[in-house]
Amino acid sequence: MSFNTFGRVFTFTTWGESHGPALGATVDGCPPGVALDEAFIQQFLDRRRPGTSKFTTQRQEPDQVRILSGVFEGKTTGTPIQLMIENTDQRSKDYGDIAQAFRPGHADITYHMKYGLRDYRGGGRSSARETAARVAAGGIAHAVLRDLAPQLTITGYMVQMGTLHLDRANFDAEEIGNNPFFLPDASAVPAWEDYLNGIRKDQNSVGAALEVLIRGCPAGLGAPIYAKLDTDLAAAMMSINAVKGVEIGEGMASAALTGTDNADEIRMGNDGPRYLSNHAGGILGGISTGQDIVVRFAVKPTSSILTPRRTINQRGEEIELITKGRHDPCVGIRAVPIAEAMAACVILDHLLLDRAQTGGTRGRIG
Amino acid sequence: MSFNTFGRVFTFTTWGESHGPALGATVDGCPPGVALDEAFIQQFLDRRRPGTSKFTTQRQEPDQVRILSGVFEGKTTGTPIQLMIENTDQRSKDYGDIAQAFRPGHADITYHMKYGLRDYRGGGRSSARETAARVAAGGIAHAVLRDLAPQLTITGYMVQMGTLHLDRANFDAEEIGNNPFFLPDASAVPAWEDYLNGIRKDQNSVGAALEVLIRGCPAGLGAPIYAKLDTDLAAAMMSINAVKGVEIGEGMASAALTGTDNADEIRMGNDGPRYLSNHAGGILGGISTGQDIVVRFAVKPTSSILTPRRTINQRGEEIELITKGRHDPCVGIRAVPIAEAMAACVILDHLLLDRAQTGGTRGRIG
Amino acid sequence: MSFNTFGRVFTFTTWGESHGPALGATVDGCPPGVALDEAFIQQFLDRRRPGTSKFTTQRQEPDQVRILSGVFEGKTTGTPIQLMIENTDQRSKDYGDIAQAFRPGHADITYHMKYGLRDYRGGGRSSARETAARVAAGGIAHAVLRDLAPQLTITGYMVQMGTLHLDRANFDAEEIGNNPFFLPDASAVPAWEDYLNGIRKDQNSVGAALEVLIRGCPAGLGAPIYAKLDTDLAAAMMSINAVKGVEIGEGMASAALTGTDNADEIRMGNDGPRYLSNHAGGILGGISTGQDIVVRFAVKPTSSILTPRRTINQRGEEIELITKGRHDPCVGIRAVPIAEAMAACVILDHLLLDRAQTGGTRGRIG
Amino acid sequence: MSFNTFGRVFTFTTWGESHGPALGATVDGCPPGVALDEAFIQQFLDRRRPGTSKFTTQRQEPDQVRILSGVFEGKTTGTPIQLMIENTDQRSKDYGDIAQAFRPGHADITYHMKYGLRDYRGGGRSSARETAARVAAGGIAHAVLRDLAPQLTITGYMVQMGTLHLDRANFDAEEIGNNPFFLPDASAVPAWEDYLNGIRKDQNSVGAALEVLIRGCPAGLGAPIYAKLDTDLAAAMMSINAVKGVEIGEGMASAALTGTDNADEIRMGNDGPRYLSNHAGGILGGISTGQDIVVRFAVKPTSSILTPRRTINQRGEEIELITKGRHDPCVGIRAVPIAEAMAACVILDHLLLDRAQTGGTRGRIG
Repeated sequence: MSFNTFGRVFTFTTWGESHGPALGATVDGCPPGVALDEAFIQQFLDRRRPGTSKFTTQRQEPDQVRILSGVFEGKTTGTPIQLMIENTDQRSKDYGDIAQAFRPGHADITYHMKYGLRDYRGGGRSSARETAARVAAGGIAHAVLRDLAPQLTITGYMVQMGTLHLDRANFDAEEIGNNPFFLPDASAVPAWEDYLNGIRKDQNSVGAALEVLIRGCPAGLGAPIYAKLDTDLAAAMMSINAVKGVEIGEGMASAALTGTDNADEIRMGNDGPRYLSNHAGGILGGISTGQDIVVRFAVKPTSSILTPRRTINQRGEEIELITKGRHDPCVGIRAVPIAEAMAACVILDHLLLDRAQTGGTRGRIG
Repeated sequence: MSFNTFGRVFTFTTWGESHGPALGATVDGCPPGVALDEAFIQQFLDRRRPGTSKFTTQRQEPDQVRILSGVFEGKTTGTPIQLMIENTDQRSKDYGDIAQAFRPGHADITYHMKYGLRDYRGGGRSSARETAARVAAGGIAHAVLRDLAPQLTITGYMVQMGTLHLDRANFDAEEIGNNPFFLPDASAVPAWEDYLNGIRKDQNSVGAALEVLIRGCPAGLGAPIYAKLDTDLAAAMMSINAVKGVEIGEGMASAALTGTDNADEIRMGNDGPRYLSNHAGGILGGISTGQDIVVRFAVKPTSSILTPRRTINQRGEEIELITKGRHDPCVGIRAVPIAEAMAACVILDHLLLDRAQTGGTRGRIG
Repeated sequence: MSFNTFGRVFTFTTWGESHGPALGATVDGCPPGVALDEAFIQQFLDRRRPGTSKFTTQRQEPDQVRILSGVFEGKTTGTPIQLMIENTDQRSKDYGDIAQAFRPGHADITYHMKYGLRDYRGGGRSSARETAARVAAGGIAHAVLRDLAPQLTITGYMVQMGTLHLDRANFDAEEIGNNPFFLPDASAVPAWEDYLNGIRKDQNSVGAALEVLIRGCPAGLGAPIYAKLDTDLAAAMMSINAVKGVEIGEGMASAALTGTDNADEIRMGNDGPRYLSNHAGGILGGISTGQDIVVRFAVKPTSSILTPRRTINQRGEEIELITKGRHDPCVGIRAVPIAEAMAACVILDHLLLDRAQTGGTRGRIG
Repeated sequence: MSFNTFGRVFTFTTWGESHGPALGATVDGCPPGVALDEAFIQQFLDRRRPGTSKFTTQRQEPDQVRILSGVFEGKTTGTPIQLMIENTDQRSKDYGDIAQAFRPGHADITYHMKYGLRDYRGGGRSSARETAARVAAGGIAHAVLRDLAPQLTITGYMVQMGTLHLDRANFDAEEIGNNPFFLPDASAVPAWEDYLNGIRKDQNSVGAALEVLIRGCPAGLGAPIYAKLDTDLAAAMMSINAVKGVEIGEGMASAALTGTDNADEIRMGNDGPRYLSNHAGGILGGISTGQDIVVRFAVKPTSSILTPRRTINQRGEEIELITKGRHDPCVGIRAVPIAEAMAACVILDHLLLDRAQTGGTRGRIG
């Protein structure tokens, strides 16, 4: 019941603070015999790494992952895999001002109230740096999925930043990696750049909405009632820093739909059911249908901003606070690879769970 | 790691199918010495009970709960509490038509694919009847919270049904219990009745959005990173049948906000921090701030409708299906007491978790 | 993390008190499609049932099990299976004397100290009646193992009662069911009867040692380090009322062995390794070898006896106590079917765990 | 449900192989605000360290622990604590001979059969080196217990080595640290040295039995039925490499006792119950009584010996095998600090669990 562990069979426990010597993830339950090396995991970390564009924090962290256990001669052994990423660019002095003050909208105050003390350097445990460890764990999940479900792909992208929305008519998955926003529409990139530059110059920050699309997921994953696939995906996304809402398929918009509209009608395809629509987002009753799984979530604006805000400090004094340091103007951007990692972990975990209970067999139709 | 268990210290496991002899909940981890009897739990079940208005299924179930264990001479003993509700009004013959067919938008097909067989009577395990067991478990959580956090209240209500939205200017919590919609605005009730009557006459159904407001929750509940209070609340709500989206505080709307808008500024109150706004919905970094906790979620329209929809059956034949039987035109209505029950269980669980790790002490400010 | 749940994938949660209306087990994670009915489970309960010989408590309980959920048309559905056994012969008045007193060697005093109150009727939750629920859950495990590992057998028997020891030279498994002691040696039965009659007439009770032999268990079950097969078997046996010691293979005697003696040498058999001895009891490094698994455990004498003992009551007064009521002179006897049930649950659980992580594949030799 | 995690609230996950770059433990659920540094943990590691006498493996490992997270300015923060011990003296070439061969009595063959591959260097994950990580985790448990239960002491010692038994009449706890056997009897040390020298010269090894004595444990710890304190202690000890039997109190000997003998009679002391004996070993019904808790366990002889044994290799060939390398002639010796560490973790975990459910209150007597 470890508080810092995610998953049921394929589990990872993240550890580490923003300005400690290192952070990492302890991965347990990984199937044996899967090809894995540091380079494979590194590619996922590189996508999340700060300092790669002017729109993310200028902290320079190589985020080099080391595998300390669980892999032998290039293959997983079935024992725990320890992933460690050393912190190299901690400028703890930047944080002196906020050692005693609570940033509005930040976990500073709640950590203090709960634990009575906190590692204030860079947000300590509540820093987005923790997510590097998740991304590394997600790399292992990807390696296993490549073996167990080779047809499966997981693709994250931004669909909203502040007042700007993705025009789905222009959706082009190929473009996601070609711009600093993970935006699947090349034509919109200049406008997004201008917008975020404006936010940054205003010493402000802005929220975002992201989507993760999981294609090729086998039908039958998910364990009702309280280990539903959508429940676990929602928990996975909500656990990411600054996330305030999660949607599956139609999401909150389903409140406005009628039953006739919302029914995803079914015909018979060559190799199973063929659905005429996907309002459900690929999950019914907590179990995957075999359609695309669509998860969307919102990330609130970075709470560390250069504009002064009223707050208090640990002595109970009322103050105004400016958060110096190196912060993302839109922390949602870097959530894309994190969400992909979490999705990979959830899908793999359910794949293993399903073969525990059902042996991976499927009910026949026709 | 029981699939049908919710919670970490205060846990409940629901069991039972829509048309089996009984259903219930096995509650474990309940503190000892708490006053509890069947009548106390029954009041929560009565709020959720079907057949109480023309807007819910006409199935007549008394939903009488029995306590089979764990309570002695009117007090909990610290041992498992078994709650049983016998099913009395199962008209299984109503479901003969769909024994082999898959309702579009329903879990029929995914249960079949996963398990290879299913109890098709009334949706079996995927029926909303399962939620009666949760409401009963929630009753126990309420009894314990009355002792451990007497100032805490949990209030659910509808904020949207199809195209109709709650006018928050009219919000009156006193009115929630006075109408069939759990609507905190008496003036809107006639319009909601007309609207839902229209839906029903069209042999259709409609979605809904609900909100749960938790007042008086102590600061410091929540266990980062993967047992955050908001993560657990999101999982709790997403586990309810037909829920497709969950929001905390600003929710999906936080994607459009800037950091200056979203910062909940803080002043010093008489007995601790005083927040000037609550965009965060009472949770920062996964830990409660002491403010109101605000959770919102959307329920899709009932998939069982009288309007014919295209689908397939188990033999792989393409058919058109009308779902007879007794179904709610807006299944979201009855989700109100369910969501309150889930919220009560999450809050209690975190209260117990917190006293495990911190002893329930709090960091000082001032 | 339910306190009253056993297992990881195949889990059961027992509930109920000795003199409450009913007791039972909530079984989750059972594979779907397995043939199961009440009669199959009943046969295991009948072996454990009290009142079947003069050497067990004369309480008359039919111990009729009812399946309330999770089975449809004779097959498991993959959803939770609720098993309920109603209590019919509660003579609560028998226990009036000990409502306030603590029996020496009994859990009366620790339950009181921990929970502040207790259901004193018949020992409440700490009564051996709880084990009826385990035996029922074990029946389900047996049903699944029949499908997944048809060659596997689990056989429990007594090896010691007080000063009497099983003469292993006379071991005959066929005889186990033919005497009230689950003794695999017909020739010793009269002596065991005389001995236990003597104990009973002395208003005394006596301890016992039991063995469970698991044959046909596939190699490869067990998940090091903290979910080792022997760890889980030890926990399973130690959780049974009154058990004070558990051994695997040579057990405590291995302290006296040398490495040359203890090495189970290996030759190559027709279909895999062939071991020349089995000091290890079928488990190496927490993983099954494919040999017979041998588990032994000791049960202390029943603490409820008719001979007066010095103790205190809840008011702190020093008293002498005789425990009236109907108690087993050797509670170890009835532990045989309980231990078999626990073993079946552990083996099944590890079989499912193993197919989660490895898919059930095995490393090749030769 | 991580396979490599121990505990429920205070949890640790060990990772690492004998000859990998490092090994360690990820500790979660530690209370905040506890004074902790590397030196405090190091003292426990130093007691277990190999190479400290001629009776343990001559591998020279400094076993220097590093704290990578979860401690700030000398205090625990309530976040995960990562403990890392780098391996420095891996002579992997020593193990070339057994890369393909299976040592009799060793986990080589079961790891191979389960996982299809294994890190054969030094036993990989099944090496006793894993226990260094447990001892480090136990150091943290000790630090917390010092705060929460300052009167509590945990003392391990040997009670048997091969044919030699501790003479309890000579028991002197002060002597435990003064000899290489953790033996509480100075007078017996020369005989034990002679005996073990003989074993070593015979190119053999020998088993051992150990005892852990827990004094000052508060009454009321333990959570029946399946998280009993004795169940968890049994699992903890059985999880240690080479352990084949575990006893609480009278242990296996209770099979020979009668109820009158075994009853621990009770009188009223100044501050609660006073027991006249302790056959139960301090635990009744799975809950601590407040008396001394007595746990005993047997460790089989080291399976890696220099005397040739018959076995097979991975190609299925029958061979004779001598295990070179540096091995303990009595691996049980070094189990003393390991068992103390496991006991500390179990007691702390139950202390936290208990305050979750009961708030740490106790039922009154008198």
